[in-house]
Amino acid sequence: MNEQASPSDAELAAIARGIFDAQPFTQWIGAELREVGRGRADIALRNRPELRQQHGFVHGGVISYLADNALTFAGGLALGGDAVTAEHKINFVRPAVGDVILARASVITVTKSQAVCQCLVYASDRNGEKIVAIAQGTISKAHSR
Amino acid sequence: MNEQASPSDAELAAIARGIFDAQPFTQWIGAELREVGRGRADIALRNRPELRQQHGFVHGGVISYLADNALTFAGGLALGGDAVTAEHKINFVRPAVGDVILARASVITVTKSQAVCQCLVYASDRNGEKIVAIAQGTISKAHSR
Amino acid sequence: MNEQASPSDAELAAIARGIFDAQPFTQWIGAELREVGRGRADIALRNRPELRQQHGFVHGGVISYLADNALTFAGGLALGGDAVTAEHKINFVRPAVGDVILARASVITVTKSQAVCQCLVYASDRNGEKIVAIAQGTISKAHSR
Amino acid sequence: MNEQASPSDAELAAIARGIFDAQPFTQWIGAELREVGRGRADIALRNRPELRQQHGFVHGGVISYLADNALTFAGGLALGGDAVTAEHKINFVRPAVGDVILARASVITVTKSQAVCQCLVYASDRNGEKIVAIAQGTISKAHSR
Repeated sequence: MNEQASPSDAELAAIARGIFDAQPFTQWIGAELREVGRGRADIALRNRPELRQQHGFVHGGVISYLADNALTFAGGLALGGDAVTAEHKINFVRPAVGDVILARASVITVTKSQAVCQCLVYASDRNGEKIVAIAQGTISKAHSR
Repeated sequence: MNEQASPSDAELAAIARGIFDAQPFTQWIGAELREVGRGRADIALRNRPELRQQHGFVHGGVISYLADNALTFAGGLALGGDAVTAEHKINFVRPAVGDVILARASVITVTKSQAVCQCLVYASDRNGEKIVAIAQGTISKAHSR
Repeated sequence: MNEQASPSDAELAAIARGIFDAQPFTQWIGAELREVGRGRADIALRNRPELRQQHGFVHGGVISYLADNALTFAGGLALGGDAVTAEHKINFVRPAVGDVILARASVITVTKSQAVCQCLVYASDRNGEKIVAIAQGTISKAHSR
Repeated sequence: MNEQASPSDAELAAIARGIFDAQPFTQWIGAELREVGRGRADIALRNRPELRQQHGFVHGGVISYLADNALTFAGGLALGGDAVTAEHKINFVRPAVGDVILARASVITVTKSQAVCQCLVYASDRNGEKIVAIAQGTISKAHSR
């Protein structure tokens, strides 16, 4: 995301999608940027056999990736610039089963150079959705890393 | 990992390798269980283009996966049973570049049902290795989840 | 908090207040249990010179205490029993100045033995309130520690 | 801590002690800066009735304060300047009983503006010492907050 003037919401969303599409790992794992707004981002991933651990649940590392990436995009959209996750913390509260895993992140506070964001990760199927993980992290402007 | 008697170190290592090999995501991403011991585990991943983010560094989500999995194995090996990561926290301290990413986890304290472990994640190439991330987490016996 | 039957909200609040009043440190530091509900607790502390660090802001350790205690009470009220904080994470986002520091915690998910809670800490004066810290933690039933 | 030239270890220790003594909360709670070095700090607190929670253990908030402050000093001593804790995470692994609580922090990595530190908190009596908590946090130079 560029830092000239103040981009409109639509411009910001377009920039976020551009960065998302430029992440090889994100493309490889098959994640999808569902929704973006100023300070929020939803990233979804369809459950597939190769994303699982030994008990058939989606691997915690996949959940971590989704939370990490949603936090980064929510923070970057709040900061209005390319961003990195400086640190995060995640609680896994329930085995992740279902058709789709959705990480929904939003900013809590933002300064010039940092945003603190929270993220709920849901697993959903036709019966509804359940929270499987809860994360909190610090997102920094990319150049300040 | 079974809970009969107290397995020998070699048995414990064999059980850990069995669980590792039974994780579809771990196989898919190509991680390798390098070293295991009572309360410690090293997991490595060769850097490949599809593991990267938009700036060419290994994606933070991949680093998170490695730390998460190393923490789980270190904790499971300390607990002597199949284990899950209940929660963890990770600091990304340097962009991850290099040939190999190595997550090295070890237990700090262990009770009957929980272990608290720390993990250093290194990126290495022919010039040496550098710490790229630092993690701490709680590992619980699998049945207590 | 006892575990017989299911206590009413009023009983639960009374039990929480009893535990709060039985904490010597809480009495010594002068904290006040403002509000309690099923899965939420607000704890306030009037800013005094002896609570500060070298720059005149409320010490981060005091903010940590408030968040820690609010998380424990929110979790205990959700679990319906005496509880301990197993772990938490806190981000300090702004120097804490003002007349009153308020930690407002609420439960996000709860199982039989554990709750994951979040907490916002505010500093307020006559001009309004500002978030100074954001926390997330795991609260366990006391006997399971 | 000033940022002229590079202070000697003895100067750095003296500066750290000056800041420690200038923290009203630290004086009020009665903490003691035991040891300092480049990137490490030990802070101790004698157990007293007013530091406890409802079961007679040292309150988790007191443990958090000790870890928080030890992390800040370890980080500040690594950064060579006045520092603040940007965030930290703490696991409470055992009830804190004993005569003295000691938080021992050391730096893991440091850049120009930030240090990531870890801290073990011990409770000790005449029979020895036990780990009661484990923390990890980010310490930033004070002016960059």
